[in-house]
Amino acid sequence: MARVAQAGDRVLLIDRRHKRHIITLEPGKAFHTDRGVISHDALIGRPYGRQVHTHLGEPFTVLRPSIADLAKAVRRTTQIVYPKDSGYILMRMNVGAGARIIEGGTGSGSLTVVLAHAVMPTGHVYTYERRPEMSALAARNLAKVGLDRYVTLHVRDIRDGFVEDDVDGIFLDVREPWLYLEQVTRALSSGGFFGALLPTTNQVSALLAAMHSGPWCDVDVVELLLRRYKPNPERLRPEDRMVAHTAFLVFARYVISGSSGAAPSPPPQEHTLSDGG
Amino acid sequence: MARVAQAGDRVLLIDRRHKRHIITLEPGKAFHTDRGVISHDALIGRPYGRQVHTHLGEPFTVLRPSIADLAKAVRRTTQIVYPKDSGYILMRMNVGAGARIIEGGTGSGSLTVVLAHAVMPTGHVYTYERRPEMSALAARNLAKVGLDRYVTLHVRDIRDGFVEDDVDGIFLDVREPWLYLEQVTRALSSGGFFGALLPTTNQVSALLAAMHSGPWCDVDVVELLLRRYKPNPERLRPEDRMVAHTAFLVFARYVISGSSGAAPSPPPQEHTLSDGG
Amino acid sequence: MARVAQAGDRVLLIDRRHKRHIITLEPGKAFHTDRGVISHDALIGRPYGRQVHTHLGEPFTVLRPSIADLAKAVRRTTQIVYPKDSGYILMRMNVGAGARIIEGGTGSGSLTVVLAHAVMPTGHVYTYERRPEMSALAARNLAKVGLDRYVTLHVRDIRDGFVEDDVDGIFLDVREPWLYLEQVTRALSSGGFFGALLPTTNQVSALLAAMHSGPWCDVDVVELLLRRYKPNPERLRPEDRMVAHTAFLVFARYVISGSSGAAPSPPPQEHTLSDGG
Amino acid sequence: MARVAQAGDRVLLIDRRHKRHIITLEPGKAFHTDRGVISHDALIGRPYGRQVHTHLGEPFTVLRPSIADLAKAVRRTTQIVYPKDSGYILMRMNVGAGARIIEGGTGSGSLTVVLAHAVMPTGHVYTYERRPEMSALAARNLAKVGLDRYVTLHVRDIRDGFVEDDVDGIFLDVREPWLYLEQVTRALSSGGFFGALLPTTNQVSALLAAMHSGPWCDVDVVELLLRRYKPNPERLRPEDRMVAHTAFLVFARYVISGSSGAAPSPPPQEHTLSDGG
Repeated sequence: MARVAQAGDRVLLIDRRHKRHIITLEPGKAFHTDRGVISHDALIGRPYGRQVHTHLGEPFTVLRPSIADLAKAVRRTTQIVYPKDSGYILMRMNVGAGARIIEGGTGSGSLTVVLAHAVMPTGHVYTYERRPEMSALAARNLAKVGLDRYVTLHVRDIRDGFVEDDVDGIFLDVREPWLYLEQVTRALSSGGFFGALLPTTNQVSALLAAMHSGPWCDVDVVELLLRRYKPNPERLRPEDRMVAHTAFLVFARYVISGSSGAAPSPPPQEHTLSDGG
Repeated sequence: MARVAQAGDRVLLIDRRHKRHIITLEPGKAFHTDRGVISHDALIGRPYGRQVHTHLGEPFTVLRPSIADLAKAVRRTTQIVYPKDSGYILMRMNVGAGARIIEGGTGSGSLTVVLAHAVMPTGHVYTYERRPEMSALAARNLAKVGLDRYVTLHVRDIRDGFVEDDVDGIFLDVREPWLYLEQVTRALSSGGFFGALLPTTNQVSALLAAMHSGPWCDVDVVELLLRRYKPNPERLRPEDRMVAHTAFLVFARYVISGSSGAAPSPPPQEHTLSDGG
Repeated sequence: MARVAQAGDRVLLIDRRHKRHIITLEPGKAFHTDRGVISHDALIGRPYGRQVHTHLGEPFTVLRPSIADLAKAVRRTTQIVYPKDSGYILMRMNVGAGARIIEGGTGSGSLTVVLAHAVMPTGHVYTYERRPEMSALAARNLAKVGLDRYVTLHVRDIRDGFVEDDVDGIFLDVREPWLYLEQVTRALSSGGFFGALLPTTNQVSALLAAMHSGPWCDVDVVELLLRRYKPNPERLRPEDRMVAHTAFLVFARYVISGSSGAAPSPPPQEHTLSDGG
Repeated sequence: MARVAQAGDRVLLIDRRHKRHIITLEPGKAFHTDRGVISHDALIGRPYGRQVHTHLGEPFTVLRPSIADLAKAVRRTTQIVYPKDSGYILMRMNVGAGARIIEGGTGSGSLTVVLAHAVMPTGHVYTYERRPEMSALAARNLAKVGLDRYVTLHVRDIRDGFVEDDVDGIFLDVREPWLYLEQVTRALSSGGFFGALLPTTNQVSALLAAMHSGPWCDVDVVELLLRRYKPNPERLRPEDRMVAHTAFLVFARYVISGSSGAAPSPPPQEHTLSDGG
């Protein structure tokens, strides 16, 4: 949470036309724009939240990127998970410091970055990807943002199962998640959180069908729409165009079949309210 | 992250009709439903993710609630912040372990719960509320979920300024946030994250007008829509009705006016790409 | 378009709490409310756009209902087609005065009312319903709004085909429209408009699959969301809740396979623009 | 409703990549594409709903355009009214054959085309535009689609009032509709339909404020969102991007203040239901 830009930092630069650039500070390097150049050395050691100028005098504001900025800025060869979706995944799957989370389908690592940021400093993310070059790309993306220590990258087909067990949550971002539900239930703690991201309605139907009458509870299918407004106080209105669809999200809790405990003895006298205790 | 229900735990019970109940386990107490009674003692010591039955044989699934469940279940006398919004706030304001965050307008504490969960174990939330009884309610809500140690509750009008300074982010959920921008900039670190939640378009316009030509950058106005689907694989369709509006969210970065550093010396030879460095 | 209420008119009455009532004026009858009674005779002969009072002094505004009001007010035992959807159907299927339109699945007749209003005075709607009691209900609904002369109601299973042919458009609001595409193409003019209303994604997939590689062009799947705002100038904001889903709409044009005409002779000199002619 | 393409027809041509072209057939002319040329003479006299080929063999499907196609294809120098909005305007303002409608703000005439199509053959549209060149453009757009006989184009500032009176409905698509409410009420029939299209929330607030405590009833503010799906039966999903905002629509009924008729005499015996009569 340093307030001063340091070598190795991922830094967000915003120009006068609100265009965003994220760079990693390296002594001796330079950031080239179509309006001039800024040397990294001019940034290193400076406090955040100030303007710098290119050698042609063009101003840029220098900021620490948010985790949303970082997740969107990963180098990618796959579709990324958008902040509107990943923020909700954190909430629904209870991802916080100390959590142990498995991710199936590392891809470029945009969700991995968000999960790692959320479980640090005491939790861990175990992420699976069968394509070595994709896993290597995600590894570089994680290292760039300094979150690699909270992540184990497996180059492994999840068909062969997960190495960890008793984890708090498993999230799948793969084409056919319904094929791996057995692997999921072997690795997930009793009562643990399951989630999946699916672009098409056919995939949602296939996953729901596979989960039907299985060890699942609290099954929920949602999608999130983010609508952005033009920030003009006298002419406030939604943007003309928006991202209309990223993916559907499916959530469920893993419930071990069979009852736990006999019927309780007759109720005591003192009542508690059903909605609050 | 205990896997076994313990006295003092907030526990989620889901019945056959998918109705949700959150209770706090207390030895000797009982959970009364319209289909019979479950004694807390029958739950304490049991693993999560199993079913229990009332004395009339009705099954309930016993789960650890997610942070989304907890935030929605606070005892409240005010409008709560919904998980779709609070998850996105975490992402945009970079709220993670170690962050120091000020919240203006504690209300019932539903967002406070989420912020505390996100900054633990090394960060802290400072929350302001001028109504003592409201602050006391939020304190009880935080204690119930075991997050009170990460939160300082101030009973204080934010008109009088914030006690802390150099914090990472400030989020305002008050009726007229535009009145307190000076207080915000005195307490916020250079480059820090500002956010506000506003139900009406008039409030958004008023806040944007007050921020105009002030020390703000990257101003963004959004709203999130959550659409839920009926989880029926053969008849997949959105729910008939949905929550159509909770609030607009305004985000910005605090930028100290004036430049930091002179124009850099002529650019070095080695190039870096503007979008990745 | 009479400006004075007449016996037999469908009349819209709006009370102080914005509640809407639609009645048919009949001499000697009375409209009973929980705030008193209005005799129909007090309304007959009065100009529209005025207030009347119950015998207890409660004011009601008297208006001619719009076609949207009428379509929503049909007596129904089935799901109706909402104005947001039926207005778009008119636009996309080119329903105007003089058009001959087949509707498969009369139901309660809410869409039939809209179609009849749009094709009058020179067009006609042919609507099919296999349940006699449903067709009779729709007939009464059409008579009530004075549009029955523009509609032929068939009590007939569309599996047995349509009686008319060479119609301008065919719209199906039935559970399995993909079963009747042959019947559709026998009755539809070359180039004619096809439309269908489907609640679930599975139905949309099934219809698209059946249309695939068939005589269809310009296939389009849409849904419309209507968001209502609280009309308060100082506190403008969307309503808290909304209808999140009524149905998906599928549109297509019927194209007779095989080419019409040989390749044209070499182009003449004078050019025309491709987007405007 | 001719089934055969004729000289003067507006014709829709769709290519293999689903691109749409609208042209007016003129003997001796040619339609030039990047895949070859089609002579208009090869189209004139041919039935609709067939394919033709360019001299290079590229197929195009030939269709009569819908009113939605025509409204979107007007030559324009202003923002057009989208079919999703104009279809709903027809429903809410009861625009049908025989209606007399005033439009304030002709613009390029895209809504004028839709209104004319809906009121024909017995109604009429009176449209006002103060910029002569804009009115002339709309006149040409109306003539092209053969609807000019149902429209009177006034080149006149609506500040000076409308020429007609006692019309069924008035729709304003102008920047500051709140300035012309007096002109509206002088021209609108008692109980008539008022509507307005407004891009920004500030305009909606200003109009609502001006209507407050005026002769208005049943005031309603809505917006319509059209979501399009990729028509792939095995991979059904919403399009990636959508038009997120066109405009807000405000509707109201004009009510002449003061009561019409005394309180009715005591109610007769026979009851009618308040929701159906």
